[in-house]
Amino acid sequence: MALVETNVIYNGKMKCLYLGKLSVLSLLLELERDGFCQNPFFECLVAEVPEEYKSNEGFTVVGYALYYYTYSTWNGRSLFLEDLYVMQEFRGKGIDKSLLCKVAEVGKNKQCVRLQLSVLDWNTPSLDFYAAKGGQDLTASEGWHSIRFDGQHLDKLADEAPKD
Amino acid sequence: MALVETNVIYNGKMKCLYLGKLSVLSLLLELERDGFCQNPFFECLVAEVPEEYKSNEGFTVVGYALYYYTYSTWNGRSLFLEDLYVMQEFRGKGIDKSLLCKVAEVGKNKQCVRLQLSVLDWNTPSLDFYAAKGGQDLTASEGWHSIRFDGQHLDKLADEAPKD
Repeated sequence: MALVETNVIYNGKMKCLYLGKLSVLSLLLELERDGFCQNPFFECLVAEVPEEYKSNEGFTVVGYALYYYTYSTWNGRSLFLEDLYVMQEFRGKGIDKSLLCKVAEVGKNKQCVRLQLSVLDWNTPSLDFYAAKGGQDLTASEGWHSIRFDGQHLDKLADEAPKD
Repeated sequence: MALVETNVIYNGKMKCLYLGKLSVLSLLLELERDGFCQNPFFECLVAEVPEEYKSNEGFTVVGYALYYYTYSTWNGRSLFLEDLYVMQEFRGKGIDKSLLCKVAEVGKNKQCVRLQLSVLDWNTPSLDFYAAKGGQDLTASEGWHSIRFDGQHLDKLADEAPKD
């Protein structure tokens, strides 16, 4: 398996094929716009297999980790792992762990002091996987809750911003 | 009050004075390095009062919001509000809400579809404040948990990364 650090367009394609609900074209264009601009909004690592091991559908890129940089005023640079995905037929081979470790390495090289991610509480296999690697569950141990504004609520906040 | 969109060095200073535990100089240098580079790790809005209303300690910058861009492979650009701070003596004047709204406006202008943040579960005033503005508690409603790797666990992950 080769891990290549790059913003790669395969991710969107894979995700679409996997979940079959988004328009491939519009997603590809969005990923290209946001990942290949001057200040990219994300970076990505892909797991690639040699041609002779390609997937049933003919892909050699069989997994990816998509991440971006965050910041703590107390601790400085951090890294957030947004997506860690490996095709079903390639699971159980340690590719997920390799991607996670590679992301950690990228973070260390960029002087990041933390690697964070979010997991749903019913996803016990993932929670156990991360806990086994030393990940702290900050929600369970410290009570951190994640709050989101979107849609009309985000519009309303923006509308109420003071005018310069 | 004037809200100025910029990466401002006052933040670190204020935070140090407020909490009195970090070295002002090293924090200022770090903030300068990470906020003023070509691809800044964060952006910041400050709340400034006219000279005649300056704080007891002589500051005209009395609050700030520090945020950065994140990314969802499903929904695209998002914005994360890392810190929202208003000096004690200037609280209760709506400066926090103004900063929050201004950050939402920045996000909308940058085509962000979400504004997210984290709150501790014992911080009921903040939870209520965000809920009143339409913020969804994703931890309570969907079960999202926040996981963090740092220190030796992050080092170990990075050490285990496959070599190219």
